[in-house]
Amino acid sequence: MGKQVYSFHEGNQDMRELLGGKGANLAEMTRLGLPIPAGFTITTEACMAYLTNHKKWDAELQAEIDQHIEQLENETGKSFNSPHHLLLVSVRSGAKQSMPGMMDTILNLGLNDKTVESLATETNNPTFAYDCYRRLIQMYGNVVNGIPSYLFEDELSQVKKQQGIQNDTDMKASDWQLVIAIYKDLYHQQTERDFPQNPKEQLYGAIEAVFSSWNNERAKVYRQLNNIPNDLGTAVNIQEMVYGNSGNQSGTGVAFTRHPATGKPGIFGEYLINAQGEDVVAGIRTPKPVSDLAQAMPEIYQQFVSLAEKLEKHYKDMQDIEFTIENEKLFFLQTRNGKRTAKAAFQIAVDLVEEGIISKEEAVMQIEPKSVDKLLHPSFDQEAIDSAEILTNVGLPASPGAASGRIYFDAEMAKERAEAGEKVILFRQETSPEDINGMVVSEAIVTSRGGMTSHAAVVARGMGCCCVVGCQELDIDEKNKQVTIFDEVLIEGDEVSVDGTKGVIYRGKIPTVPSTSDDAFQKLMAWAKEISRLDVRMNAETINDIRMGLNFNPDGIGLVRTEHMFFAPERLREMRRFILSQHAYDQKAALDKILRYQIEDFKAIYQEMQSHPVVIRLLDPPFHEFLPAGNRDMQMVANQMNLTINQLQARIEELTEVNPMLGHRGCRLAISYPDLYKMQVEAIIRAAIKMKQSGVRVKPEIMIPLVGMKEELTRIKEDIMAHIENILIENKTYIAYSVGTMLEVPRACFIADELSEQADFFSFGTNDLTQMVYGFSRDDAGKFINHYLSQNILPFDPFQTIDRDGVGELVKIAVKKARQTNPNIKIGVCGELGGDPDSIAFFTEVGLDYVSCSPFRVPVAQLAAAQSTIQQTT
Amino acid sequence: MGKQVYSFHEGNQDMRELLGGKGANLAEMTRLGLPIPAGFTITTEACMAYLTNHKKWDAELQAEIDQHIEQLENETGKSFNSPHHLLLVSVRSGAKQSMPGMMDTILNLGLNDKTVESLATETNNPTFAYDCYRRLIQMYGNVVNGIPSYLFEDELSQVKKQQGIQNDTDMKASDWQLVIAIYKDLYHQQTERDFPQNPKEQLYGAIEAVFSSWNNERAKVYRQLNNIPNDLGTAVNIQEMVYGNSGNQSGTGVAFTRHPATGKPGIFGEYLINAQGEDVVAGIRTPKPVSDLAQAMPEIYQQFVSLAEKLEKHYKDMQDIEFTIENEKLFFLQTRNGKRTAKAAFQIAVDLVEEGIISKEEAVMQIEPKSVDKLLHPSFDQEAIDSAEILTNVGLPASPGAASGRIYFDAEMAKERAEAGEKVILFRQETSPEDINGMVVSEAIVTSRGGMTSHAAVVARGMGCCCVVGCQELDIDEKNKQVTIFDEVLIEGDEVSVDGTKGVIYRGKIPTVPSTSDDAFQKLMAWAKEISRLDVRMNAETINDIRMGLNFNPDGIGLVRTEHMFFAPERLREMRRFILSQHAYDQKAALDKILRYQIEDFKAIYQEMQSHPVVIRLLDPPFHEFLPAGNRDMQMVANQMNLTINQLQARIEELTEVNPMLGHRGCRLAISYPDLYKMQVEAIIRAAIKMKQSGVRVKPEIMIPLVGMKEELTRIKEDIMAHIENILIENKTYIAYSVGTMLEVPRACFIADELSEQADFFSFGTNDLTQMVYGFSRDDAGKFINHYLSQNILPFDPFQTIDRDGVGELVKIAVKKARQTNPNIKIGVCGELGGDPDSIAFFTEVGLDYVSCSPFRVPVAQLAAAQSTIQQTT
Repeated sequence: MGKQVYSFHEGNQDMRELLGGKGANLAEMTRLGLPIPAGFTITTEACMAYLTNHKKWDAELQAEIDQHIEQLENETGKSFNSPHHLLLVSVRSGAKQSMPGMMDTILNLGLNDKTVESLATETNNPTFAYDCYRRLIQMYGNVVNGIPSYLFEDELSQVKKQQGIQNDTDMKASDWQLVIAIYKDLYHQQTERDFPQNPKEQLYGAIEAVFSSWNNERAKVYRQLNNIPNDLGTAVNIQEMVYGNSGNQSGTGVAFTRHPATGKPGIFGEYLINAQGEDVVAGIRTPKPVSDLAQAMPEIYQQFVSLAEKLEKHYKDMQDIEFTIENEKLFFLQTRNGKRTAKAAFQIAVDLVEEGIISKEEAVMQIEPKSVDKLLHPSFDQEAIDSAEILTNVGLPASPGAASGRIYFDAEMAKERAEAGEKVILFRQETSPEDINGMVVSEAIVTSRGGMTSHAAVVARGMGCCCVVGCQELDIDEKNKQVTIFDEVLIEGDEVSVDGTKGVIYRGKIPTVPSTSDDAFQKLMAWAKEISRLDVRMNAETINDIRMGLNFNPDGIGLVRTEHMFFAPERLREMRRFILSQHAYDQKAALDKILRYQIEDFKAIYQEMQSHPVVIRLLDPPFHEFLPAGNRDMQMVANQMNLTINQLQARIEELTEVNPMLGHRGCRLAISYPDLYKMQVEAIIRAAIKMKQSGVRVKPEIMIPLVGMKEELTRIKEDIMAHIENILIENKTYIAYSVGTMLEVPRACFIADELSEQADFFSFGTNDLTQMVYGFSRDDAGKFINHYLSQNILPFDPFQTIDRDGVGELVKIAVKKARQTNPNIKIGVCGELGGDPDSIAFFTEVGLDYVSCSPFRVPVAQLAAAQSTIQQTT
Repeated sequence: MGKQVYSFHEGNQDMRELLGGKGANLAEMTRLGLPIPAGFTITTEACMAYLTNHKKWDAELQAEIDQHIEQLENETGKSFNSPHHLLLVSVRSGAKQSMPGMMDTILNLGLNDKTVESLATETNNPTFAYDCYRRLIQMYGNVVNGIPSYLFEDELSQVKKQQGIQNDTDMKASDWQLVIAIYKDLYHQQTERDFPQNPKEQLYGAIEAVFSSWNNERAKVYRQLNNIPNDLGTAVNIQEMVYGNSGNQSGTGVAFTRHPATGKPGIFGEYLINAQGEDVVAGIRTPKPVSDLAQAMPEIYQQFVSLAEKLEKHYKDMQDIEFTIENEKLFFLQTRNGKRTAKAAFQIAVDLVEEGIISKEEAVMQIEPKSVDKLLHPSFDQEAIDSAEILTNVGLPASPGAASGRIYFDAEMAKERAEAGEKVILFRQETSPEDINGMVVSEAIVTSRGGMTSHAAVVARGMGCCCVVGCQELDIDEKNKQVTIFDEVLIEGDEVSVDGTKGVIYRGKIPTVPSTSDDAFQKLMAWAKEISRLDVRMNAETINDIRMGLNFNPDGIGLVRTEHMFFAPERLREMRRFILSQHAYDQKAALDKILRYQIEDFKAIYQEMQSHPVVIRLLDPPFHEFLPAGNRDMQMVANQMNLTINQLQARIEELTEVNPMLGHRGCRLAISYPDLYKMQVEAIIRAAIKMKQSGVRVKPEIMIPLVGMKEELTRIKEDIMAHIENILIENKTYIAYSVGTMLEVPRACFIADELSEQADFFSFGTNDLTQMVYGFSRDDAGKFINHYLSQNILPFDPFQTIDRDGVGELVKIAVKKARQTNPNIKIGVCGELGGDPDSIAFFTEVGLDYVSCSPFRVPVAQLAAAQSTIQQTT
């Protein structure tokens, strides 16, 4: 066994594996010449050796530790048991990755019945000294000997009650002395040993406790959840104690090098004179701004500012620093990259680039892509939230944002009330395309069923509308227009607030804070686009969505879902006529009408997108989705179509499917009803011709869904291209267009080589692929998928992050095969995963050309795409 | 260009590619010294050269043909245009594979206005001579010049009408002379040329017509359908005409070397004196048995018998021979392997082995596996069928056999009437597990919906019960107990007959002929088992099915579907209690009762199977399949369970799924309700313990369905093994058992390496794999799959024959990965494809260990398995 203990002078920040994160960091700061209380680190290897050697204490290790303690005594001029220059130390764990659950900290180690008296005399503060000692006994008894904390707390309460004391701060020295006596009794009673008086014995015990805590239950579970190997082990840091509470020339504080909420440059933080670390956070005394130090201790302040700047430059990021001043001497106890708001993150990253501290790539890497969501949606005012009443918090946060309004249970009523000027919130068991009119006017959408990719969730994200789904604690009774939460009932018109970022619903109205998109955001996003190898498009078809999405500079539209255009009443009527009529002339008349609508639809889209690429997917859903459901609707449709209710019912029954997900839909409809796709491509091309006449050249990309056989693509493509040819000849013009297909049934991936011979582009439909690869219905899996996630049977939700082992393998197979026969084929993704950072990393890795996602996720995707490009280039 | 024309003396049977099948065969027979009318063959290469050279006639080819005609004249002593020794020839196409749609035959080529007179004189039969000539003009005009046949037929009818003649046989020489004159006019009028009088000109024209017919529409479609390459071309055979109608020392006949219906050895056939080929088939005169020739022309007969034997030995199979006797001289015109019944096929193959003509392997290769089905099911009496009235013939032949009986529309009524002694036939729109009581008592099952793998089809095949499904012409009204076929209505109790082999339904009762399974069958099947590398198991759980299957010596049971055991009323009640109860003690009580039933179930299965392996699949279907549907049922269950109808409905709604196929079922149920599988394995092990006590050692193979994630298998396996361990300890005994999993969701195939580390065996569930790889719901695809098949978008039904490109790729990936981590893992198939010969060839190829199929398909599978083993070994 080699060297097992490193002084802080011997390490550096690259030694995280051996010294743990905290140890490496303390060594690095020491190396930089910062004033760090002296100390040393016992390596992770020593820990693993101890654990694999049946927890047998190693003589060599003990010798090394003793030697380092001696060195520490020399360096500090203090020593264990010295009456005047008393050495006390802290013992802290520190693994490679920060990991909750392990033993954390023992402070004041080295105190005993004798030295506590010296400390009382030296600091002239007996109360402080006895308090430190009783804390040591309590911490040590708990973490080293496993005595339950509550036993100590109970005894303390007893003493306070007897003495008539309310707060710990009112305890006098003699009170603490009493507590110490009782604690020592408790310790003896529980361990059948006296509390160790020898500092060395205390130290060895603490080190063994840290070693062993690597294998406690919480730590093991955490490692499993986060895929951290079990054989890393933890390091142990032993460091001289310093005290900010040793008089008025002492103090302690916490400071950021830039403002964590706004990103504004300059030191921002708080400190307390004559205080210890936790006092700043505890809120008993009101801390002062760190800037006050400029007057109070100008030299210390100058030193602090310059060292903080040094740290920021060194770590190339805003720092969150803990410091202590002991008798006019400044110590840094910890520094780490500071947490910040999304807004501040952009500002800081951009400023750091402009100050020459980091590169554009490093700036892009600094932003957590998912945080962008927060930036772009309003959120509740934090103070108001703290006092708000939570109705339920088990919903899935389907679409971020915050909104208040009145509850309505059907689309019609929601629309009516919204038109009357009310803020409305739609509550449904689940939504269907027929609810769309109600959804677009709602401030928020809430469902009791469905998952993160349910209809409500997908539509809401598309619109950037706040949405909570699968909120099982809500018992929504649409018929009686009420919702029951446990034993409470809310009715139509009651006011609630919905947090789509967290999945929480509150009673009543809560004020919101608007979203922000400032210069820093714009600058950084422009860099991201510049860097990214992957294009990012948006899934959008309504003018509102498109305009909203265009704010984020997407590289075109990756998915226009034409079926979303079929649900306005006058169109739905024609679509139903087409489906229900037995007469060819009736069907043709219906298609002709829809054709006219569709031409206008596509013209409007082209108008917004100008010459940016637009992928238009031909009709995908099964016919029964267009048919009426309720009695009133049935009667209306029967009348319109000149059918008896029985005839209509028979036709609906005929079209009803046991597994609609695997049924008669997508291109299968076009094989059965070729006129349908012909009508759609006619609209696409005629709209493009009109645009050309007005001087805008669009190049539509026509996408055929659900292809699983080569012949499907061959025939449909032949069919629509012949039709387009006729239209172009008739108009004596030419429109460039391309034809591609979705890869969304597994079989399509296996025959991607055959398909790519005939396709200009592919787009993976990851939702359907995931459904079929797992055999999970998106509509039904809600029943067990949460259970699977909570049990860790599924390590993550494959509808939100790509399943590399299954779906990912199919993607790889398809990409490889496709490029074999058509090296230039453009390949993208237009499923939900197109906006997920982890999935985007995978798509970059396998060499896709673009991803397409909801408009609001475009910036998230752009950032993630840039980050994965950087990671895979370096 | 090399040699383009081969005399029959120059070729042999291995030259099919160059000379076509017919040419190679004629050459082979010539080579064997058989009396074959002389002739020669123009190669397929000559044909392709002609076609690719824009149909330009090649001078070299013409020279070669002329040279061979000269040789033919020398050989026969006859010549074109000779008044006394007139050479007439036939011209026939002959590609490598027999291919309908191409031009077939021109006879009597060489006749013209002059030579027809010589023929009349020489044969002393002017009627015959003129008839031959008019036939030549008609055939030639039609196939060479494309004059529609009906124009000739019309003219002939006109003449017969004028002359008052009914039948062609009543035509006199002068009548035919009149027809010849009219035909020549017609020919001139249509082609603006005279009918060619020069035999050589006739010959060249005929050859060009054969060449061109390679590319006619019907031939092209046929090639596409049968995957025959377009660049093979056809050969042309030119052969001296011989006439069996040249007097009483002449004749013609057709004979088999063994009896085609029974397989009995010995010449079997018919002949006519003084007749031409088609007269034997035409049925105008009654032919005599070939054996009569022994008296009539003993020398000819002896010659025929010995040459027929020679041919049979040469071709190693029963031969179907066409022969002609011209003036006491015997000619063989054609020989080919004879068609035969399934029964005869077995007899002949076994006899040929025992006569030392073929090996056991060759015998096994001679049987078409699918023909075995016919052998094992009764069929309708052929004569009765010919006069029966077809009600509909568009149904799918889901399970072979033939049966008559009275129609019933619900299971209950069917059961009641069957118990009263009636033969019943169950008519349903589709069947569900609740119909099972009616299905088991029915002679046949008919449905108007569903495909070859629908519930009705699968269950019927399992029971060996005749079944027709997806019969769309039937409008079945279950409520009013009637079925409408176009404008005809049948009601309850009406008698029909069902042919499950053909998918036809007849009015009334038709007598049947029983199935046969004789010594020859047993012998050949034993050889097949000996040869096969693949084991064949059966899918079965009822005692009837198991006993029936055991007749075919399967290698155990590959799939016990335990859910089939849950539908008897008393069990269904307990299952419903388990699903619907909110109380743990109620659920436990229900499981305890089911446990007792299941122990008996498994004991009964073990009892039948003794120590043969049995794979038991744990419960697979979603819970809602067990819940009541109709109002009456709902009320009953609500009463039993002490629920209100509303409560029951709410629970049913909760369990209802949008896509049950992709829902909460299989092992997912066990994750949610661990006690379910524990109960089942307890029954499996307790039953095995009882068997062991009675001296039979069974080794159950426990199969977990629908696994898609490693953790599913890990946890369930841990859970059930711990439970089994407890039972074994409690009983102080040991039972060997294994635990495996189905690979039926695509993802399972991708993680087969991880799964195989924990599994003793795998079984591919090809039904579900196919559903998910294509995105086809078996229950819904009926709506478009037939259209896809008829349009050749799907070249075959992937639920009946494995899709090598998609499902097959997954199988290959899984096998490779599985054997990487567990080289000894046993891998099989238990889906429908396990009984399909083409699929079995694939499974042999990729190295599976066994297939498992319905009991009645076991012999089909055994044969197919042996054949694929032979094919892949050689």
